[in-house]
Amino acid sequence: MPSWLRRVLIGEPLATHRLSFERLGMLGGLAVFAADALSSSAYGPEEILRALVLAGSGALGWVVGIGIAIAALLAVVVISYRQTVIEYPSGGGAYVVARDNLGTLPSLVAGGALQTDYVLTVAVSVAAGVAAITSAWPALLTYRVLIGVVWIAFMAIVNLRGVRESAAVFGVPVYAFIALMLAMIAMGLGRLAFGTIEPVTSEYVAATQPLTLFLILRAFSSGGATLTGIEAVANGVQAFTKPSGRNAARVLGVLGVLLGVMTVGIALLAHGLEVHPADHETVTSQIAAAVFGRGTLYYALQITTAIILIIAANTSFAGFPRLAAFMANDGFVPRQFANIGDRLVYSNGIIFLAVLASILLTVFGGDVHALIPLYAVGVFTAFTLSQSGMVLHWLRKRDEGWRHRAIVNAIGAAVTGIVLIVVAATKFVLGAWLIVVLIPLLLVAFRAIRRHYDYVAQRLSLDMASEVKPLRNLNLLLVGGMHRGTLEGLEYLRALTGEGRAVHLEVGGEHNPRIKRMWDDWEKEIPLVILESPYRSMTEPLVEYIQSTQSTEGYDTVTVIIPEFVVDTWWESLLHNHSALWLQVLLRNVPGVALLNMRYRL
Amino acid sequence: MPSWLRRVLIGEPLATHRLSFERLGMLGGLAVFAADALSSSAYGPEEILRALVLAGSGALGWVVGIGIAIAALLAVVVISYRQTVIEYPSGGGAYVVARDNLGTLPSLVAGGALQTDYVLTVAVSVAAGVAAITSAWPALLTYRVLIGVVWIAFMAIVNLRGVRESAAVFGVPVYAFIALMLAMIAMGLGRLAFGTIEPVTSEYVAATQPLTLFLILRAFSSGGATLTGIEAVANGVQAFTKPSGRNAARVLGVLGVLLGVMTVGIALLAHGLEVHPADHETVTSQIAAAVFGRGTLYYALQITTAIILIIAANTSFAGFPRLAAFMANDGFVPRQFANIGDRLVYSNGIIFLAVLASILLTVFGGDVHALIPLYAVGVFTAFTLSQSGMVLHWLRKRDEGWRHRAIVNAIGAAVTGIVLIVVAATKFVLGAWLIVVLIPLLLVAFRAIRRHYDYVAQRLSLDMASEVKPLRNLNLLLVGGMHRGTLEGLEYLRALTGEGRAVHLEVGGEHNPRIKRMWDDWEKEIPLVILESPYRSMTEPLVEYIQSTQSTEGYDTVTVIIPEFVVDTWWESLLHNHSALWLQVLLRNVPGVALLNMRYRL
Repeated sequence: MPSWLRRVLIGEPLATHRLSFERLGMLGGLAVFAADALSSSAYGPEEILRALVLAGSGALGWVVGIGIAIAALLAVVVISYRQTVIEYPSGGGAYVVARDNLGTLPSLVAGGALQTDYVLTVAVSVAAGVAAITSAWPALLTYRVLIGVVWIAFMAIVNLRGVRESAAVFGVPVYAFIALMLAMIAMGLGRLAFGTIEPVTSEYVAATQPLTLFLILRAFSSGGATLTGIEAVANGVQAFTKPSGRNAARVLGVLGVLLGVMTVGIALLAHGLEVHPADHETVTSQIAAAVFGRGTLYYALQITTAIILIIAANTSFAGFPRLAAFMANDGFVPRQFANIGDRLVYSNGIIFLAVLASILLTVFGGDVHALIPLYAVGVFTAFTLSQSGMVLHWLRKRDEGWRHRAIVNAIGAAVTGIVLIVVAATKFVLGAWLIVVLIPLLLVAFRAIRRHYDYVAQRLSLDMASEVKPLRNLNLLLVGGMHRGTLEGLEYLRALTGEGRAVHLEVGGEHNPRIKRMWDDWEKEIPLVILESPYRSMTEPLVEYIQSTQSTEGYDTVTVIIPEFVVDTWWESLLHNHSALWLQVLLRNVPGVALLNMRYRL
Repeated sequence: MPSWLRRVLIGEPLATHRLSFERLGMLGGLAVFAADALSSSAYGPEEILRALVLAGSGALGWVVGIGIAIAALLAVVVISYRQTVIEYPSGGGAYVVARDNLGTLPSLVAGGALQTDYVLTVAVSVAAGVAAITSAWPALLTYRVLIGVVWIAFMAIVNLRGVRESAAVFGVPVYAFIALMLAMIAMGLGRLAFGTIEPVTSEYVAATQPLTLFLILRAFSSGGATLTGIEAVANGVQAFTKPSGRNAARVLGVLGVLLGVMTVGIALLAHGLEVHPADHETVTSQIAAAVFGRGTLYYALQITTAIILIIAANTSFAGFPRLAAFMANDGFVPRQFANIGDRLVYSNGIIFLAVLASILLTVFGGDVHALIPLYAVGVFTAFTLSQSGMVLHWLRKRDEGWRHRAIVNAIGAAVTGIVLIVVAATKFVLGAWLIVVLIPLLLVAFRAIRRHYDYVAQRLSLDMASEVKPLRNLNLLLVGGMHRGTLEGLEYLRALTGEGRAVHLEVGGEHNPRIKRMWDDWEKEIPLVILESPYRSMTEPLVEYIQSTQSTEGYDTVTVIIPEFVVDTWWESLLHNHSALWLQVLLRNVPGVALLNMRYRL
């Protein structure tokens, strides 16, 4: 990428010592990490009602109980995770906690499950957001894949610009959404209490199936699926200003309270207003219309809801690169994921996530309903492993108050473990089985990568210093003809060492080429070797010669000096053969060859 | 391209000394160069009738006269060109003849005009051939661009395999077509003479416009357009076995006779059988049906006609690369066009022609009727320039019989000049004006390219030897950390010269990096320089350091030694940063820097 374009898109590079300034306070942290979790309040109660209505209008009252159950689950997870982030101020995602307390295998399971979930979250939430847009403007339906991919690219660029920039860009819609939601719940509950509001509908739907426990659990799974945001905060503790752990814990607390209030509030309103799920209108929209009337506030809420759905993916852009960097530092994924880019973010992780999610979105034609059942399994696997790890952590540490903390985390592990079983069981056939196939494959890949890095590290270790032997080196200066460039090459060779040979590849089939006749007039010290190339190959005779000097004359390395002249413009460079470049590519893998590219100006 | 694939598609490389064996006899020469010219007999008479019928059935009798006029034009051009090829046995196309006798500018006009024509011929004839196929199978209409491009690729591959292979592949349909056409003409004329055949139609078409001279000339232009084949033979004299000039002249003679007989024969048959041009059936098809009946011979002729139309493009694949090679040797087009490939053909010209024609075909959606009017102007420009050049040639040479030869070429120049004016005038509005715009642009490009090569040659000349001064060189060994690879690099530096410095880029922001603390334990001679890189750039601090050594310490060149370890498989190479490769790309254009890539195995 040309550097001016890079500056425009990403911004000026930031110095490494600025790392501590590029951090988030509480407001910024909520903006970056909350979108995913908060967006679930926009469709969670709806999903619950859709499951319950199968058992008829009479069953809809269960929405309040399930809402409270989800809020309770949230409370357990948040309380449990607050302990984790305070204890792991340099990043306490499930991967790190499982690694430190349960061992490598559980940590890799957690890491693989979370990576899968982050990728799915981006694809699913962007598809959902685009669907909200195309519901309003059906003419855009043809371009939905394009819109989704452009949006992913935009989010990737904002995140590449740095974590503070993404908080600034995405903060406004997040806070607008929170304010409008809270206003709606407060006004709605108030009007219900004072009896100044009428039920939305008086219709009655008959049951098509009995109200079983499985149905209630399915409703619960559908509603409580998107807790990825919690895990992303735990992964991203390092993104917060110091004390990072405390600040992250505070963000978790606020996030938990907000999400709990919203979920229970909407459930209460849905029940109080006797809302039925409808094909043509969302539950939130029905409630908002009843509470606000179809005026400015109503439309503002609808628009911010669409935006929040679409930026829900931003939570993954905050979580995935950090997780990949943790795993890269441990050698389980390619090391490039730990590189810090121009703006002090893990650029490769951001780009990789954007590319993978775009591919997923394109392959599924912008319609990723099939993926939704896949993507709560990963995060609850991670929760369970992380909280179990924390229990072991406290049992080992036994510092002040360890008993109380161990109990909190044990409750967290048990609750999320049960939810994991419920989610996996109710969604196995719908696609969750895919995760069961994918995770072991990821484990195999992680281990193979680690094995490779271990091998390289072992081979590169200074313990191998005895394998390093003194070398004998031969310099070969490639010359194409008798011209000024050849003289430049000879002067360079003289300046380098003064020893070596010149080599000329004779492709024209001449037996007494001109260069041979002219050589002695120009050069007395360096001898010229002529190599015949009957098939006009630039490399084969040269490789043979190199190998013969290695085998018969005992050289360990041969340094091939390739002179090349530099032209000023791109169109001029099209006019030349670029033999130097080709030779470098073709000779690259010949053992014991070092390639020296010497460029001179005309 | 992997070499196994190359072997399968193109074949084993041929040794340079085999060049003289890879030549064509008369039969092969006709197969390679005749398709374009012969294919015109399949649609030439039809185009004449289509123009004449505008003046009513009564005007159709003119077809015989125009046919004879075209045969006469052909005779003049062939006789004139036979003199040229014998006089220029190393290739006597219009470009060479104009260059040697008229000077640079006319030769470039001829060269540019011919290049344009060759590209157009490929696009137009492939499109015509594909149209013949899609007339028979309309379901293929959707894929016509694809079919055309695949066909062009196939012809390019056959030609890349070598000129003898293309003669072998394309010879069968060419000779089948000749045999069937001659049989049809002989049988048809015989049956007409003995009165054993009835007229095809008794319909009478009324005139829609008067029979003007312009109409007759337009009919003539439409019929006599495709003489590109003659020019291709003259360009390709070197492709024939020795004596090349005589053999090429013989092929020209046979080609002229065949084409004359076919054109006049079909004109006579069309007149004798009172054939009217029809929308649903070609003229040749009507005649063949009358002569042969709709049996085996009829279908054989139709199929070979379709094939010959489609391989008419092969003439361009023989002509264009040779012309481009001539011009490349003179420095007017990029030098790569003069490179001889694995199979002793000008591979780059073949590939360039195929790509350009495919682009043209794709842009025009496989329908290139709009291009047809453009493409006789070029070849008649070339004819006129070439024959005028020959006249000057004889006037200068004045050897035995020069007067007679000069008169022959003068007639050729005059006749083709008149035809050029006629063609340009009757087709100017239809698109021939585009050529008038294009040729000057090509001339500018040719001259700019030549100026660049002249500049390079002058700067590279040994006259500039005094500019070459002794150099002072500094070696810099890049080290990433204290590991075995660093020791390998130090041993290599010791073997190379023993002098230099090690350089470490500190991107982590540490003030006392580990490598600094360890260095003195491992290396006593080579000093270590630490360069801070606060923005994590791999190049900026290094470039600054290089430039400071050049400006303050007086080094002319700095050799940057970049050690890199080699992994075994492609997936392993994905796991590493490839800093060595990036550094080479990024440092490539720093003045006074030589890059040494030293690869070691683990």
